[in-house]
Amino acid sequence: MQRALDINRTRFADWYQAVVRDADMAETSPVRGAMVIKPWGYGVWEQIQQELDRRIKATGHENCYFPMFIPLSFIAKEAEHVEGFAKEMAIVTHHRLKNIDGKLQPDPDAKLEEPLVVRPTSETIIGDAFARWVRSHRDLPLLINQWANVVRWEMRPRLFLRTTEFLWQEGHTAHASEAEAVEETLKMLEVYRSFAEDYLAMPVIAGEKPENERFPGAVNTYSIEAMMQDGKALQAGTSHFLGTHFAEAQSIKFQDEAGTLTFCNTTSWGVSTRLIGGVIMTHGDDDGLRLPPAIAPKQVVVVPMLRDKPEDADVLKYCEELVAMLRKLSVFGQPIRAHLDTKKIKSAEKRWNWVRRGAPIIIEIGPRDAAGGNITYMRRDQLRDGDKVKSIALPRQEFLEEKAVQLLAEIQHGLYAEAKARLDGNIKTGVTDWKGVEEYFAGSDEEFKGWLKISWAKPSGVELDAVDTKLKGLKLTIRNAPLQQPDTFATCLFTGKPSVEEILIGRAY
Amino acid sequence: MQRALDINRTRFADWYQAVVRDADMAETSPVRGAMVIKPWGYGVWEQIQQELDRRIKATGHENCYFPMFIPLSFIAKEAEHVEGFAKEMAIVTHHRLKNIDGKLQPDPDAKLEEPLVVRPTSETIIGDAFARWVRSHRDLPLLINQWANVVRWEMRPRLFLRTTEFLWQEGHTAHASEAEAVEETLKMLEVYRSFAEDYLAMPVIAGEKPENERFPGAVNTYSIEAMMQDGKALQAGTSHFLGTHFAEAQSIKFQDEAGTLTFCNTTSWGVSTRLIGGVIMTHGDDDGLRLPPAIAPKQVVVVPMLRDKPEDADVLKYCEELVAMLRKLSVFGQPIRAHLDTKKIKSAEKRWNWVRRGAPIIIEIGPRDAAGGNITYMRRDQLRDGDKVKSIALPRQEFLEEKAVQLLAEIQHGLYAEAKARLDGNIKTGVTDWKGVEEYFAGSDEEFKGWLKISWAKPSGVELDAVDTKLKGLKLTIRNAPLQQPDTFATCLFTGKPSVEEILIGRAY
Repeated sequence: MQRALDINRTRFADWYQAVVRDADMAETSPVRGAMVIKPWGYGVWEQIQQELDRRIKATGHENCYFPMFIPLSFIAKEAEHVEGFAKEMAIVTHHRLKNIDGKLQPDPDAKLEEPLVVRPTSETIIGDAFARWVRSHRDLPLLINQWANVVRWEMRPRLFLRTTEFLWQEGHTAHASEAEAVEETLKMLEVYRSFAEDYLAMPVIAGEKPENERFPGAVNTYSIEAMMQDGKALQAGTSHFLGTHFAEAQSIKFQDEAGTLTFCNTTSWGVSTRLIGGVIMTHGDDDGLRLPPAIAPKQVVVVPMLRDKPEDADVLKYCEELVAMLRKLSVFGQPIRAHLDTKKIKSAEKRWNWVRRGAPIIIEIGPRDAAGGNITYMRRDQLRDGDKVKSIALPRQEFLEEKAVQLLAEIQHGLYAEAKARLDGNIKTGVTDWKGVEEYFAGSDEEFKGWLKISWAKPSGVELDAVDTKLKGLKLTIRNAPLQQPDTFATCLFTGKPSVEEILIGRAY
Repeated sequence: MQRALDINRTRFADWYQAVVRDADMAETSPVRGAMVIKPWGYGVWEQIQQELDRRIKATGHENCYFPMFIPLSFIAKEAEHVEGFAKEMAIVTHHRLKNIDGKLQPDPDAKLEEPLVVRPTSETIIGDAFARWVRSHRDLPLLINQWANVVRWEMRPRLFLRTTEFLWQEGHTAHASEAEAVEETLKMLEVYRSFAEDYLAMPVIAGEKPENERFPGAVNTYSIEAMMQDGKALQAGTSHFLGTHFAEAQSIKFQDEAGTLTFCNTTSWGVSTRLIGGVIMTHGDDDGLRLPPAIAPKQVVVVPMLRDKPEDADVLKYCEELVAMLRKLSVFGQPIRAHLDTKKIKSAEKRWNWVRRGAPIIIEIGPRDAAGGNITYMRRDQLRDGDKVKSIALPRQEFLEEKAVQLLAEIQHGLYAEAKARLDGNIKTGVTDWKGVEEYFAGSDEEFKGWLKISWAKPSGVELDAVDTKLKGLKLTIRNAPLQQPDTFATCLFTGKPSVEEILIGRAY
């Protein structure tokens, strides 16, 4: 079987699109920039939601739901916030349609007095509730999360990575002290880091964003950054310390133990369906998607090789037993998600459907397997031996007792190790002048480039603008200043001044 | 302790509002008609989602996600559909804000060529995808569900019952034959019936809606109807057989086994956060909410009676052990959801918080309980003996081994039985003329009225309009024609013709 795709030779963007399509993850919709998430893609999102929700609750947060429409005046309250988001919002201006001259259109009599913005994020509408809910220090900390859809108008949309509407969770918290809010910001960053690495098998670097990349209205923004197979960075999650900016704009105040009325310190943090794009670009290969078992909606797929013959019944019965036995086993703390594919299409077609979708283990059962008490399996992370597909035969009992659970754990770790080696091996250090930066990023856009880790003096204001412009000339951005920093630094590559930290620069999504 | 509310003496609508507020379920928001669902209310929704999602998947459906914006031209495709929904939609007309003359407003340069409607329901946008996905009879049935927010502009909003934005699930399916689509429609109606009764402890009558109450574009609409404590009906879920109406409008066609291109038959069905309003109006009492244990976010709440004394540590330790032991027990197939309330407020205040929120079992532990190995519990469904709160002391071991699980099951069944007796006892039969109808529904709006079950000839067109007008004069509507029908009928109460079925009439939300 020929490989369907070629991650090395075609354009990476085309490869990505082909995987999203062939793995049945999502498709474009008639609404510009908005996607349809198909069952297999949504199944991955459900796995992400379930585990991340567990971790968010385990750190003391409760889920709520807030209106998706935000009055225009709310958005206008925090100056930087409006500046940052005003360019990309969907605006509701009418609440009724009317047939005028045979054409259905917004009813002029139903024009809203104040337009409503479809939430691009919910700091303002949630802050309004916080202002009502917080009275005393006893009401703090207030730890809230919401799973929701949000809209940011996109002129150049890409499935999962940049869509006008996307799904996410957004955490919002209010605290009595700055120290506690900063601690919360970093705690949730760590929840994201460990979730991405342990669960998505996607290694990341956690760090602080530079001033010019901060969330509009934030004091500090932190991110986790993952390296895709084309070397580009994907910002995979952010956590913001908002200081008292939003609290002051929205009057979120509490009486402290001494009775003094004080502004809260607030935070917000979020990850989105973008994570799915990250998983695809981290683990996909020339045959399509490879899913880490922890987030695969189906971890073991059983394909019966049916031939419209009497022995089909035995094969089916044997497969049903196998699936039932697999479901009694546990991996990652949950029953194995095993699936019997009984669709009425050819078994070879089924095999390749599951290969392209990235099911971690695919088992094929023919009449001889059923009669002999065997199974034949493929592991998706090591599908081929040269060009040939590798399938391994084993007694069913041995597979169940000694192999299945161990194999799923092995695939999970293997995918992580592969991506971790790529990340670690492609962060270049030791470049100390601009020429070195230019040389590293020279050549075609399609060539693999990793990231540079360089030292800088952390300039701000116009000095930072100059750095930003220089970097943009090479299509580069500062990804973040990793939380782990050395004790000493090279001279600042941009200003020649003494450095205060190391930062990562690279091309990004 | 005085009861906070009085379900009999105050207006029922005021009582409802007070329970929603006191039980911390939801509140109004600055966006007209849109609500904030607070953690306790959202926790109930999460329980509903989890169990209903399980049942929807167990019947073969897969979850997807479709864009929330629908091009105006899509809505216009199905004539009846647009007629039914055109009056209540939020319309997005711009995709950018701009500061003009110092005022933030929709940017005239960013006006959309085609306005977008925020989904009031998704038949049209999902049908568009179905038209792409269905080619052959092998692609059928297509069984899809989505959990989403929807918007229907409300002029007279009420928390949970009628809000401009609400949360729901909407199932959408396509089938090769009419018979199969009808079977699906009724299967999902039965899923809703059993879910409402077994899980929400809310007895319902499943039946078919009359022609004038059908979903816009449906061939048949079925509903489950519950009786609230004021006697009014709440439509708690609907299931629609759409025939080929939407398939024809959207070109959802398949090649059948003979190779002929044929229109699919489609269905849709949904329940929403309105169910939570139903739970409140079914089970609430003068002390606030009573939650069926199956959907209570916390089933057993442990309140330590702390006094800022050294023995507090022992009390806390004893409570922690109790909670840990409760969590090892299972009820309704899941670990008991036990919670230790360590908030820094007085324990009496905690008790009443949990009473108002309707936690099924509240346990209070003082130093003497801890020292003696006892517990003292209240069951929320039978909170009082006269005016006094009833609390029962038991050895901890006995409570764990013989009481906790059994008690939760008993409360669940008790709440159902109470509501079932109310429903069964308040459907009056035997009324055969209009005078009887007028007499039954005479008196103040605030008086309890149940429903009438009457026979009719199932008129349609103008004849039905006349019936509708007559009923509306008494603020009545036809709720549904129950699936269970007798063999013979009285003469049609409206037309004097031979009847073909029995219908329920009553006042409704």
